[in-house]
Amino acid sequence: MKNFSKILRIILVMIIFYGVNTQAQNQPVNDVTTPLHLMQPNYPTPYGAPAIDSVKAVLDKVYNYLNKVTPAKVVDRNTGEEITDFSKLNREAAFATSDFRLISYEWGVTYAGMMLASEVTGDHKFAEYSAERFKLIADLTKFYRENPDMDVEGSIVHSVLHPRALDDAGAMCAAMIKTSRAGNHAEAFRPVIDNFIDYIHNQQFRFPDGTLARNRPQPNTLWLDDMFMSVPALAQMGKLTGDDQYYDDAVKQVLQFSKRMFNSEKGLFMHGWVQGMSVHPEYFWGRANGWAVMAMVELLDVLPKTHPGYQDVLKQLQAHVKGLAKYQDGTGFWHQLLDRNDTYLETSCTAIYTYSIAKAIDDGLVDARAFIPVVILGWNAVATKINDTGQVLGTCVGTGMGFDPAFYFYRPINAYAAHGYGPVILAGSEIIKLIQTHDLYINDSSLQLRLEE
Amino acid sequence: MKNFSKILRIILVMIIFYGVNTQAQNQPVNDVTTPLHLMQPNYPTPYGAPAIDSVKAVLDKVYNYLNKVTPAKVVDRNTGEEITDFSKLNREAAFATSDFRLISYEWGVTYAGMMLASEVTGDHKFAEYSAERFKLIADLTKFYRENPDMDVEGSIVHSVLHPRALDDAGAMCAAMIKTSRAGNHAEAFRPVIDNFIDYIHNQQFRFPDGTLARNRPQPNTLWLDDMFMSVPALAQMGKLTGDDQYYDDAVKQVLQFSKRMFNSEKGLFMHGWVQGMSVHPEYFWGRANGWAVMAMVELLDVLPKTHPGYQDVLKQLQAHVKGLAKYQDGTGFWHQLLDRNDTYLETSCTAIYTYSIAKAIDDGLVDARAFIPVVILGWNAVATKINDTGQVLGTCVGTGMGFDPAFYFYRPINAYAAHGYGPVILAGSEIIKLIQTHDLYINDSSLQLRLEE
Amino acid sequence: MKNFSKILRIILVMIIFYGVNTQAQNQPVNDVTTPLHLMQPNYPTPYGAPAIDSVKAVLDKVYNYLNKVTPAKVVDRNTGEEITDFSKLNREAAFATSDFRLISYEWGVTYAGMMLASEVTGDHKFAEYSAERFKLIADLTKFYRENPDMDVEGSIVHSVLHPRALDDAGAMCAAMIKTSRAGNHAEAFRPVIDNFIDYIHNQQFRFPDGTLARNRPQPNTLWLDDMFMSVPALAQMGKLTGDDQYYDDAVKQVLQFSKRMFNSEKGLFMHGWVQGMSVHPEYFWGRANGWAVMAMVELLDVLPKTHPGYQDVLKQLQAHVKGLAKYQDGTGFWHQLLDRNDTYLETSCTAIYTYSIAKAIDDGLVDARAFIPVVILGWNAVATKINDTGQVLGTCVGTGMGFDPAFYFYRPINAYAAHGYGPVILAGSEIIKLIQTHDLYINDSSLQLRLEE
Repeated sequence: MKNFSKILRIILVMIIFYGVNTQAQNQPVNDVTTPLHLMQPNYPTPYGAPAIDSVKAVLDKVYNYLNKVTPAKVVDRNTGEEITDFSKLNREAAFATSDFRLISYEWGVTYAGMMLASEVTGDHKFAEYSAERFKLIADLTKFYRENPDMDVEGSIVHSVLHPRALDDAGAMCAAMIKTSRAGNHAEAFRPVIDNFIDYIHNQQFRFPDGTLARNRPQPNTLWLDDMFMSVPALAQMGKLTGDDQYYDDAVKQVLQFSKRMFNSEKGLFMHGWVQGMSVHPEYFWGRANGWAVMAMVELLDVLPKTHPGYQDVLKQLQAHVKGLAKYQDGTGFWHQLLDRNDTYLETSCTAIYTYSIAKAIDDGLVDARAFIPVVILGWNAVATKINDTGQVLGTCVGTGMGFDPAFYFYRPINAYAAHGYGPVILAGSEIIKLIQTHDLYINDSSLQLRLEE
Repeated sequence: MKNFSKILRIILVMIIFYGVNTQAQNQPVNDVTTPLHLMQPNYPTPYGAPAIDSVKAVLDKVYNYLNKVTPAKVVDRNTGEEITDFSKLNREAAFATSDFRLISYEWGVTYAGMMLASEVTGDHKFAEYSAERFKLIADLTKFYRENPDMDVEGSIVHSVLHPRALDDAGAMCAAMIKTSRAGNHAEAFRPVIDNFIDYIHNQQFRFPDGTLARNRPQPNTLWLDDMFMSVPALAQMGKLTGDDQYYDDAVKQVLQFSKRMFNSEKGLFMHGWVQGMSVHPEYFWGRANGWAVMAMVELLDVLPKTHPGYQDVLKQLQAHVKGLAKYQDGTGFWHQLLDRNDTYLETSCTAIYTYSIAKAIDDGLVDARAFIPVVILGWNAVATKINDTGQVLGTCVGTGMGFDPAFYFYRPINAYAAHGYGPVILAGSEIIKLIQTHDLYINDSSLQLRLEE
Repeated sequence: MKNFSKILRIILVMIIFYGVNTQAQNQPVNDVTTPLHLMQPNYPTPYGAPAIDSVKAVLDKVYNYLNKVTPAKVVDRNTGEEITDFSKLNREAAFATSDFRLISYEWGVTYAGMMLASEVTGDHKFAEYSAERFKLIADLTKFYRENPDMDVEGSIVHSVLHPRALDDAGAMCAAMIKTSRAGNHAEAFRPVIDNFIDYIHNQQFRFPDGTLARNRPQPNTLWLDDMFMSVPALAQMGKLTGDDQYYDDAVKQVLQFSKRMFNSEKGLFMHGWVQGMSVHPEYFWGRANGWAVMAMVELLDVLPKTHPGYQDVLKQLQAHVKGLAKYQDGTGFWHQLLDRNDTYLETSCTAIYTYSIAKAIDDGLVDARAFIPVVILGWNAVATKINDTGQVLGTCVGTGMGFDPAFYFYRPINAYAAHGYGPVILAGSEIIKLIQTHDLYINDSSLQLRLEE
């Protein structure tokens, strides 16, 4: 019966669609009686700058859901009983039942998003979300570091103490530094941060030229995702310590990834690049392009303008933003494969671009008049994908690297794909800031930025 | 109930479609018994050169509709009573109830179309349509010029006497000169023409280099549409007066717009270009590309081949025609955004390209063998959009300039969008001329031009 | 009623599709409980390397069908009685009722496919199919050559004795040489081979620079198809005779066609090119691109590496393969017009690319890691188009050359379009070889080649 109602909904949509068009033709309007050019288009996505309250309402809805389903609580995985006395931690300690993993690169993005939401809205509950969970993780990490016999494979913070991939380290580290820099638990976080950075800066496999690489799915593979899994953490560490070596490493990653993986005709990055392949199949996967553009924006947020790599990173960012904008769909979303309009419209990449480009506008890095209409539309699209529960729909699940189109075309989507949440919070927060600081209006049906006189 | 019948029609279409394919598989045909390569394709648009009578019939149908719904009649806007004694004109004079505005750039195109239809078919009713209405406008203008106290904001020919945008002047002016040059009311029209040309040539805002510009939606904005709103009028004025300054200005506009707005990889023009933006969002809007190609064809129609700019304009035209042809849909239409095949198929741009490319062929400006199949298909597509009433369906309404895709993707269409009518008449007329002067035939299922031996 | 059941099937498909997605959202899975990235995608085409048995089963199915419906039997076309005593052949001799023509370029491809299937699978029935029919054709040819009074227009082997187009000669000749080289009837075949080669090498119309051309649909027209209708035959003749003149001619054709017809930005060939046209409309037709890539692979199969043209042909092949791979659809098929994703998915071109790229991989000509996922997906797609009867569905019928998009968009498809059969057999055979010689596995949901340690 549920399926039957789906069919009915499809038929209803058809009726509505054709009905509206029919009416348009039948109305007693004509070229003389009606300013046809001002007729309301049948936009599938709301058009024009949203009210700030409506954006805040989306942030609240997502926060409420996440705060409920990701408790900052440790239990005994066998008994389910809460452990509050941390001197009683053991190998069986686990996070309480949760819809999402509190320790993951996706959640690193969520923590960063909560910090920005707090800063932009002044609503401290957002920052508290990150601070509380990071404090818990830091405390747990301290215990297991001091009790190495408890620190076994699969124990609760094993991946924090022993990162084995950039996925384990970069996003968590960047968000933890941001949380620390915002005045939370600096002392407690620092050992965790240092451990993450050591992994990124010193331990991870690299090409001889220093580019961060992996040995899967092929030996000597660059993953575009890794720009995000390293650069923001290195950049934040530069800011935290004032030590140029981190900035230098971050800039190097951006430029060396870009040199190999950026298609300057399209203005997009390919997802993977394998040393030794004579041809590099170019799948312009949405989310990985999101990681790349976000990495550059995050880097330029803290990189001193005097750094010798600043201008090159800025130029690369501008070229990428220009390319991304070209591929936005009329609905405001971007496609799973950016240059293939027969792939599905994907939420997480849309949210990441919306955040990153909005921030680039707010930071004066790209042309505000050209890109504000793009990010406003992007946000309006994203907002339609938040359900009443506060879940983010339409996000592609975790994705390896493939060399055929089917792999990307048909990646599943899932409300529990954690990758959508942080970007939605980041995007909404940055859009609020953008609306607060820019004069937007409708001119002859199109959204425009009004320049200051 | 009307909507329900729509659904039934959709289902019927599905049945027919799937039915036909099924039959194709079930027929007792095979590779030996049947010349499969000669099977009739399921074309959604008629294929091959139409009979001249059928094209003429479309022109008649549109003429009959327009002649009925756009009476050349003045009334008192309060009483509705006709004013025939023009010495009794006043501030309340208005055109009689009409489906379209008799004074508009769109109707300028219609007047030009009627003149061409008359020339090609020898049927004088078409020319009479334009001559009668222009005479009325000229007479009205004379009265209000001589009675400035009646000439208030909103009075019947206020925009003729006081153009405030190229939209007010260019298309009306060009068509009026054509009508005059064809032997109609030269003396009565000349003051109106001079006033229009003065606006275009001397009054309109320009860049320091002389390029015609506007200050909306942003300061210092080029609108591709303005190539058409200026160039044909200037070109016709050059022809009318023999004064090179008009040709020079027309050529300058084409080349300076092209330099900034033509994407030579795609072979298409962007819709808008804003001085001072560091990035120019490239929305390849169908109709504006139509205005551009039509402007070039109209200019080359009268520009002396010895003019120093002739070859440059010709090369620009050829590059544009090549680009446009690449984006024609299989139905023969072009898309609202030319390079986005997920935007709707739009009638007015299809008609403008059909006219412009057909005229370029007829005038020997582009390769006939390459482009005749394109324009025949284009006309066949356009012809399917004329309903029994003689209305042109599927035309995008008046459109400002936007910097996001939604703005263009979802512009409404409307049978009263005046922009479709003139182009349909122009296209049909030029197609008749093309068929009369070229030997077209089907060779192994495809339409071909047979070269003279 | 049959149509109604079609509609019901469509509705069922909708229910299934939406049902599955709904379930995905409703399952008690979340980011913590489920490795979402390992969820099974809803692939429309099977994903991953097929079992060799399943590929062989497809070959058998197609073979069984073809062997049944294309008997190697001659009858009197009036009486229908079989003629077994060839001294009694006359003007009325004809092949027995058959679904496909035994003498055609399409069947030349089928004969070559059967030879490869035999070689790869060791199942001699495939080779026997070709050897038996070629022997019959050779015997018939001998009789009619010796009895010229019987050899009238329309007689059974008239096109073999008197080829009038490359279509009559190239593919049949190449397959006959291959069959001969595999140890079948060398002596009987040689006169037929020599006659074919004489036509290709000496009789066919050429441009002054030696490029093989036709005078339809326009004077001096290059057909991309003709790369295949000449090059493999010339290449095989080079191998058979050791005479470089055939290799030289074959290389020349590849390079001279490519110079004029290869769009290096897209990495695709246009279908036609007409000397004297100032613009060359670029329709990137699927099957003709197949003929081109297959011609190059076939040439490099036998061309000595020391030949001065070897490297140029190899580079051209690599550029084409790279271009083709870019346009593969997510289903594994390619589109009728390769760069137009709103044209239908076409079987024969997909099969030709699958064969040609797989062979290029097997022969070490292109990057195995980059292209194996492409050809495996291509084969999986093709395999879905073989019905229970053994027919190949979804193949575009014979196609002339057009200069408008409608011509290509709406070419009919038909199960009796002979062009699909040979390519399917070639593709399946080469895929078996590829799977046998490469270590394929799924890594994090994507198909990968495992390199040897």
